[in-house]
Amino acid sequence: MNHGKGGLGNFFEDFELDRELVCATPRVVTSAETTLHIAITNDRSPRFCNAEGRVNPIIVFHVVIGQTVRMVSLNSPANLGYAGMIWKTPVFHGDEISTRIRIVGLKENSNGKTGIAWVETTGRNQRGEIVLQYTRWVMVRKRDVATPTPYLDAPVVPELPAQVQASELPPWSGALTTTDQTGGRFFFEDYAAGERIYHFDGMTVNHTDHTSYTRLWQNSAKVHFDHLLTNGRPLVYGGFPLAVSYAMAFNGLENRSGIVAMNSGAHANPTYAGTTLYAYSDVLEVHDLGGPVGALRLRLVGVKDGNPADEPDFARRIRDENARERYNPRVVLDLDYWELMPKCGRGSPSMGPG
Amino acid sequence: MNHGKGGLGNFFEDFELDRELVCATPRVVTSAETTLHIAITNDRSPRFCNAEGRVNPIIVFHVVIGQTVRMVSLNSPANLGYAGMIWKTPVFHGDEISTRIRIVGLKENSNGKTGIAWVETTGRNQRGEIVLQYTRWVMVRKRDVATPTPYLDAPVVPELPAQVQASELPPWSGALTTTDQTGGRFFFEDYAAGERIYHFDGMTVNHTDHTSYTRLWQNSAKVHFDHLLTNGRPLVYGGFPLAVSYAMAFNGLENRSGIVAMNSGAHANPTYAGTTLYAYSDVLEVHDLGGPVGALRLRLVGVKDGNPADEPDFARRIRDENARERYNPRVVLDLDYWELMPKCGRGSPSMGPG
Amino acid sequence: MNHGKGGLGNFFEDFELDRELVCATPRVVTSAETTLHIAITNDRSPRFCNAEGRVNPIIVFHVVIGQTVRMVSLNSPANLGYAGMIWKTPVFHGDEISTRIRIVGLKENSNGKTGIAWVETTGRNQRGEIVLQYTRWVMVRKRDVATPTPYLDAPVVPELPAQVQASELPPWSGALTTTDQTGGRFFFEDYAAGERIYHFDGMTVNHTDHTSYTRLWQNSAKVHFDHLLTNGRPLVYGGFPLAVSYAMAFNGLENRSGIVAMNSGAHANPTYAGTTLYAYSDVLEVHDLGGPVGALRLRLVGVKDGNPADEPDFARRIRDENARERYNPRVVLDLDYWELMPKCGRGSPSMGPG
Repeated sequence: MNHGKGGLGNFFEDFELDRELVCATPRVVTSAETTLHIAITNDRSPRFCNAEGRVNPIIVFHVVIGQTVRMVSLNSPANLGYAGMIWKTPVFHGDEISTRIRIVGLKENSNGKTGIAWVETTGRNQRGEIVLQYTRWVMVRKRDVATPTPYLDAPVVPELPAQVQASELPPWSGALTTTDQTGGRFFFEDYAAGERIYHFDGMTVNHTDHTSYTRLWQNSAKVHFDHLLTNGRPLVYGGFPLAVSYAMAFNGLENRSGIVAMNSGAHANPTYAGTTLYAYSDVLEVHDLGGPVGALRLRLVGVKDGNPADEPDFARRIRDENARERYNPRVVLDLDYWELMPKCGRGSPSMGPG
Repeated sequence: MNHGKGGLGNFFEDFELDRELVCATPRVVTSAETTLHIAITNDRSPRFCNAEGRVNPIIVFHVVIGQTVRMVSLNSPANLGYAGMIWKTPVFHGDEISTRIRIVGLKENSNGKTGIAWVETTGRNQRGEIVLQYTRWVMVRKRDVATPTPYLDAPVVPELPAQVQASELPPWSGALTTTDQTGGRFFFEDYAAGERIYHFDGMTVNHTDHTSYTRLWQNSAKVHFDHLLTNGRPLVYGGFPLAVSYAMAFNGLENRSGIVAMNSGAHANPTYAGTTLYAYSDVLEVHDLGGPVGALRLRLVGVKDGNPADEPDFARRIRDENARERYNPRVVLDLDYWELMPKCGRGSPSMGPG
Repeated sequence: MNHGKGGLGNFFEDFELDRELVCATPRVVTSAETTLHIAITNDRSPRFCNAEGRVNPIIVFHVVIGQTVRMVSLNSPANLGYAGMIWKTPVFHGDEISTRIRIVGLKENSNGKTGIAWVETTGRNQRGEIVLQYTRWVMVRKRDVATPTPYLDAPVVPELPAQVQASELPPWSGALTTTDQTGGRFFFEDYAAGERIYHFDGMTVNHTDHTSYTRLWQNSAKVHFDHLLTNGRPLVYGGFPLAVSYAMAFNGLENRSGIVAMNSGAHANPTYAGTTLYAYSDVLEVHDLGGPVGALRLRLVGVKDGNPADEPDFARRIRDENARERYNPRVVLDLDYWELMPKCGRGSPSMGPG
């Protein structure tokens, strides 16, 4: 089918190694983005709701991803992973974000139908400062199944860090929130590796919840919006359960100051409208940074259709009928990330979380 | 079930008489809160849509209530009432609201399962000025059914005003709206006690309408969001039919300047998605304040699943099979409040409300 | 049924020829209106998303129409057409819009039940500058079917322009967007009369999508919100498929600078929740304005329940069983308008639309 000038989207053959490309639609982030983010995810982080106008790093993630969709993922059946994601500079209401990409790896799959593209992505503010940087890799359809590309026999696969090192985390910026502001009584010293936190809330996904949230970030991939194309089950944008799970994680991490780096992230299984989401966090690592805050490495797991807090045997990964390890089909998100958490100054409001 | 650090919510035993507590998450109110309020409730009050940036008092109500949810009502099966609610200082876009509570009454119920807590609530702006103050009382679950508290035998029940006196209403502030701005032709002198106004509109509640509105105010009580927990029928936050009914009440009260005090308020019956809401108002009292505005005491009744304007015999309260008076099961809101209404300056646009 | 002061809406008999009337509720337009517009329609026009704060003309259209609803169309079963619509002055975030109308034609229909009113509509900013001006004509119910009005025998029908002439278009204002900002590679010189562009996207209408959008513009006509009144199928506000179709038209017209004039517009068939929308554009006319931009006259066609790009035989207008020409029942919008499109400065980003 010929769309005339209205067809679009790149195929695997269109990606050129090492060339930098500018993504369309620079976007100002205002208080309205924050308010809609709150109204859709129930985010309650005090640091991102007050008159200072500091933007939740989750919002910055969505804006940057959204800007790359048209160039990278309109013909992508799957986002495969993220690496080395660091939020380098805080964003404030009124800042304008624009994004560039560079293809740093290409590998054609043996089926001839698809390839994998590694995309280095850099979001900047209006002063050119990097606000977010990461590499993600996506599966992309080939335009021409019959003709192999050079990347079938000679794939280029970049070396990517297994995780962001604590030493790479951006320095602390801004004021520390108080326990009065957060309502939380736990600080850096209270968390220990191996600990699990169940995040109490549960939220059912309505059709308009996820479509509004996806459009908010100008992600226009049809599979999220078109019931005819998807037999009435539009796929929920992976960033939606990510944002909801992170918002839920407020309970038990009230004093957190916001995600600063993502080591890896998997949209483990699809989400659809009607699904009810829950979340828990495992503390993977605690790292004293020497200043007023420490770093927690956390695994945030988003789960659908039942609260893992009620299921002592719930496992994130299971063995299938062939004894192969894979994700529990109820896991929708597996996020390994760094959070900065204030130390000391600990108060204990008698009526905080019980 | 142990949530680790992520469990939360106070039980009846956690409430301590007379101690002041600070609620979490100070919140800036911007034009985005106004715009979303309009997009969800269809509010059309000119005073709260123009470039002056004056915030609808209904929004202030939600922000303050929302800030108390985590401390007061996560384990509350019912909000029982409000008393002495006064909006003392106007709020403008950019103001940051924070809230404190004080427990002023405690009474354990004879069933041992629940108690009633009276909560004096005070919302302030960033200058410490009181923007909203009231007492509400809520039913709260006990943690330990087997062990009675002192408040079973020696309940502390505060004396609360039956209504806010006209003399306690805050002074008029700001410019009077004109009939050109409001499209209304009725002023203070046109209203008489005993008069009824049917508000014309009808609005069906969609799932995302009520969940977005509830999240907007950072009210995270699970019963509003989790279909699994509620057999697919999440309870609509009581503030939603209140806001919709008040927005509908624009028709017939176009020159109103905004609610200034609430004498009492009952969420008489639950609301669910799929319900269609209608509203009417009874004028209870008219009170000349001596200046450019008078005060109307109004009863706003929100009704579901049929328009009371079409039912001459519709009664707000009925007698049940045991001849006991109770709310008509179709009444969702019964709000007794004060509205300031401009006097004089009366015009009569020939094509205003017919 | 008597609504007391709460009943409203004008009937055909209430319209008085030539009198100017002021519509209620002057409205400030802020970044929140833009953000909600994006979150509901998926608009991605770079010119209206950046830090400059320029407001999409589609938003100005909705605000002005919304302000006239209460006076003009609460008792209107159908909007029949638009003529001579010109966006004369750009609107920026913070501007306050107010609207006046003048009845310029009246004609009673022979059935005695309805008449047609031609309404000249003028929206202005806070400095009194005209931002949008047009005439629309609407069918309006008569209050009294039994009594004919003078406009049955002596109708007054204004002469209206068949189209806005290119010479009437407002002068170019503001900076030209770059291909980096738009991601598009086609400019004025690339378009030719007779060309068709299929706009790729498809979007299913959810209940809350259209109701939120309609309320956002303070359009309170009951038929859009009340499931009881409409047997569970509220009619979607005609401005909704218009806005969605125009947003979809970004693909293939990426460098456009925003609609500047509407020659005619028909809401050809009703839209309901559950419908999936698609759109295509026909280039009707190209007009070199002599400066840095040219004018494209475009026909934007919104189609439901199937993508016309997949249907080579799809026809906008068909012949019915009586061989009478009428709209294809799947066409929901037929919009004939002018768009300014930058010339020259053409780049060709290798990974733009394919």
